[in-house]
Amino acid sequence: MKLNCDLGESYGAWQMGQDDLVMPLIDMANVACGFHAADPMVIRNTLALASRYHVEIGAHPSYHDLSGFGRRSIHHTPEEIEALLLYQLGALEGMCRKEGLSLSYVKPHGALNNDMMRDPALLHAVMVATRTFRQDLPLMIPVTRKYREHQQMAVDVGVPLLLEAFADRAYDDEGQLVSRRQAGAVHEDPEIIVRQARYFAEKGGVFSATGNWLELPADSLCVHGDNDAALEAVKAIRKALGKPRQ
Amino acid sequence: MKLNCDLGESYGAWQMGQDDLVMPLIDMANVACGFHAADPMVIRNTLALASRYHVEIGAHPSYHDLSGFGRRSIHHTPEEIEALLLYQLGALEGMCRKEGLSLSYVKPHGALNNDMMRDPALLHAVMVATRTFRQDLPLMIPVTRKYREHQQMAVDVGVPLLLEAFADRAYDDEGQLVSRRQAGAVHEDPEIIVRQARYFAEKGGVFSATGNWLELPADSLCVHGDNDAALEAVKAIRKALGKPRQ
Amino acid sequence: MKLNCDLGESYGAWQMGQDDLVMPLIDMANVACGFHAADPMVIRNTLALASRYHVEIGAHPSYHDLSGFGRRSIHHTPEEIEALLLYQLGALEGMCRKEGLSLSYVKPHGALNNDMMRDPALLHAVMVATRTFRQDLPLMIPVTRKYREHQQMAVDVGVPLLLEAFADRAYDDEGQLVSRRQAGAVHEDPEIIVRQARYFAEKGGVFSATGNWLELPADSLCVHGDNDAALEAVKAIRKALGKPRQ
Amino acid sequence: MKLNCDLGESYGAWQMGQDDLVMPLIDMANVACGFHAADPMVIRNTLALASRYHVEIGAHPSYHDLSGFGRRSIHHTPEEIEALLLYQLGALEGMCRKEGLSLSYVKPHGALNNDMMRDPALLHAVMVATRTFRQDLPLMIPVTRKYREHQQMAVDVGVPLLLEAFADRAYDDEGQLVSRRQAGAVHEDPEIIVRQARYFAEKGGVFSATGNWLELPADSLCVHGDNDAALEAVKAIRKALGKPRQ
Repeated sequence: MKLNCDLGESYGAWQMGQDDLVMPLIDMANVACGFHAADPMVIRNTLALASRYHVEIGAHPSYHDLSGFGRRSIHHTPEEIEALLLYQLGALEGMCRKEGLSLSYVKPHGALNNDMMRDPALLHAVMVATRTFRQDLPLMIPVTRKYREHQQMAVDVGVPLLLEAFADRAYDDEGQLVSRRQAGAVHEDPEIIVRQARYFAEKGGVFSATGNWLELPADSLCVHGDNDAALEAVKAIRKALGKPRQ
Repeated sequence: MKLNCDLGESYGAWQMGQDDLVMPLIDMANVACGFHAADPMVIRNTLALASRYHVEIGAHPSYHDLSGFGRRSIHHTPEEIEALLLYQLGALEGMCRKEGLSLSYVKPHGALNNDMMRDPALLHAVMVATRTFRQDLPLMIPVTRKYREHQQMAVDVGVPLLLEAFADRAYDDEGQLVSRRQAGAVHEDPEIIVRQARYFAEKGGVFSATGNWLELPADSLCVHGDNDAALEAVKAIRKALGKPRQ
Repeated sequence: MKLNCDLGESYGAWQMGQDDLVMPLIDMANVACGFHAADPMVIRNTLALASRYHVEIGAHPSYHDLSGFGRRSIHHTPEEIEALLLYQLGALEGMCRKEGLSLSYVKPHGALNNDMMRDPALLHAVMVATRTFRQDLPLMIPVTRKYREHQQMAVDVGVPLLLEAFADRAYDDEGQLVSRRQAGAVHEDPEIIVRQARYFAEKGGVFSATGNWLELPADSLCVHGDNDAALEAVKAIRKALGKPRQ
Repeated sequence: MKLNCDLGESYGAWQMGQDDLVMPLIDMANVACGFHAADPMVIRNTLALASRYHVEIGAHPSYHDLSGFGRRSIHHTPEEIEALLLYQLGALEGMCRKEGLSLSYVKPHGALNNDMMRDPALLHAVMVATRTFRQDLPLMIPVTRKYREHQQMAVDVGVPLLLEAFADRAYDDEGQLVSRRQAGAVHEDPEIIVRQARYFAEKGGVFSATGNWLELPADSLCVHGDNDAALEAVKAIRKALGKPRQ
């Protein structure tokens, strides 16, 4: 079970995240591509750090919305989605060449990620763009109870699929994340976070907020590193999963 | 002698140039990469057009300055220049994958082009970035009387060099373009334009504005397509150089 | 019956519209504020032109979306809408000081305009922002069959309302513009355009596309100036309404 | 002797500074106008905070360069400078209306500030823009040994001038700040900072880094609030100057 984290989210003079502290603790870095965060120098520094710790590089493309951090839906046609993604994936791949690296996967960011999970046409466009960029490049999407449909769609398009789960978020009975607006949506107790990580890693699922078992097979756990508690949780997850610190 | 032209310079709802009219008349398209012009859909459309007419794709990277169209100098360190270029070259290369194409060369735009011709450290950074992107990728720069120095620098860095000349611009005795602010800087008489194109193609040089012969070996002529007169001039050049219309 | 037109929609090196040709033909200029089009120099030139022809200045604020020209919906809270509008209205008012002018009204642009006509909470936020900027500053909105509701809302908020109609667009039975995706949505026959202008000016309404009379009292007609046919239509409307050319 | 500080420098999801901690300690807030930092919501929040603590609002306009935080020179004509400033001053004034406030002064940011102190034509353009915005609106510039020249230029243009000094920066014999690249450019010892503040407040000058007395009459001291040490220094300055905490 690999750990992934959103990184490279600074911009110009503005810092965000603690890339240097979290990078040694993860296996996969979702690197912003300049459309919701990251300018070329931020990307350069993030990739150098990923290279040092042998972390896989994932493109983290987004709607073009710096002031909204890619968190606001913006309608696009499938053609526009493909263009938007090819541009960002290419930009990140271009910067990887400095380090002799290459993209390992694609994970859409923010509103683009949410929207594609609601709109099959949008998800299809994202899959097509990923495959157009490179035939064997995996797309990472959240695992939900519809994961078999998503796997079938990926097979039809011809794109490998990676399923991700969250250790620190409550799930509803549909296998969707409970909205952050509801109480209990985000786990803060490290024990609960570690237990949920172990369920995903060892049992292939998780208990929903109402106590029902959900079979949700995940390839990767999304973790966060923006504060000390989050970093401690990541360390605890690594230990519980028997993953040595890098 | 190949003809190159700056294309893909529209942005969102704003049109610039007549890409569809000029594309059939040229051999090499310098495609904007989104930093001075062009959004992903503009790039997509430009590349599709280039593909149809079998025109080579050149990256036309720039300082990041949409409102100034890349015509204003912005100071960068060599590291920033490398990051700026890798990002843009990668973005364009990513979009090329849609058409099964690949970059054929790099030609910096506007103020970045002017600045690198004045500042050897900047030119060196541009060369390094081009080579880092792909070892055999040529850099296109204006031919001046210093072209041997530039060729030596390119050999030292390990980047192939393409030299470009202008058929419609007057040259001073240093082999620099006469400033547009001076009278006679831009040729408008098609006969003069064609004659200058033939000098570059057949004699490997041009007469300066003061009548001195300049040995300036060029690999490509930069042409323009923004108005009817410019298009007619390009057609006349093709004919004079014995190049059939595509 | 005053004529209004969207102007100042160029950006940097990109030209849009024919401000110099249409300005002498209109009474009210809806000037872009930099969020969907127009940089400070474009605004400066547009205001100088409006001043010369004694045309009223309307702010034409938008979502912040240059690459989408403000035509894509972007969700905002009422607080964000107020901030977005105060910023843009202030920016335009600041530039008016160069010419000794002041804003005469506010007309939201593109998707913001469409969205507020569908969402009363958004329309309310726009009204509040307009009144916060200046208590007697009118807001211009499209006249529909719900115009009495809109007038009541404006009275409640305390903002003067201007209703606008279109001479060159077909109306459905709800008094909404027929979608551009449908045939017959845009009138191109100058005779029909002039007739519709006269209906609005002289009868306070218009016949819908299906032939029903709609009472739609308008204060201003929106006209376009982007091509020769559009300019001729504006001239014909001026003549038909007995308005001398400025 | 009033204390001023650069504030409102966050942008979208990116935080910068500690506006809530420093606002109660200062008299004048230099508020970013959206061109190097600050979106409308950031400005809104900063102005609400300034209003609560009765702090004067200064516009802090900049070159348009978010990714460079306004720290890179970008060449503009005097007409462009005027347009750039009127736009930003207007935008901030528009947002002030929410709080019933108005601009108290203008202090250019970053590279624009540095450039105007080197280029009298640029300084003149900034003065003209400030006066065009509002005839009695003061411009704040750094005090140097050329302050009499600057005062005369301001009288000629008709703009009130405010001179600012720095308590935490070393001065060279020309009354310029010692470059940050040199050792000793920034004072970190609170005692030295407080002593320098008292010199400016009580003696109308400061000793240069080489020990020469410089007569530099200042109206305001620029302070910083980005870290705990900076905040402590501001508190110490307030106490030393006999200014009660707000």
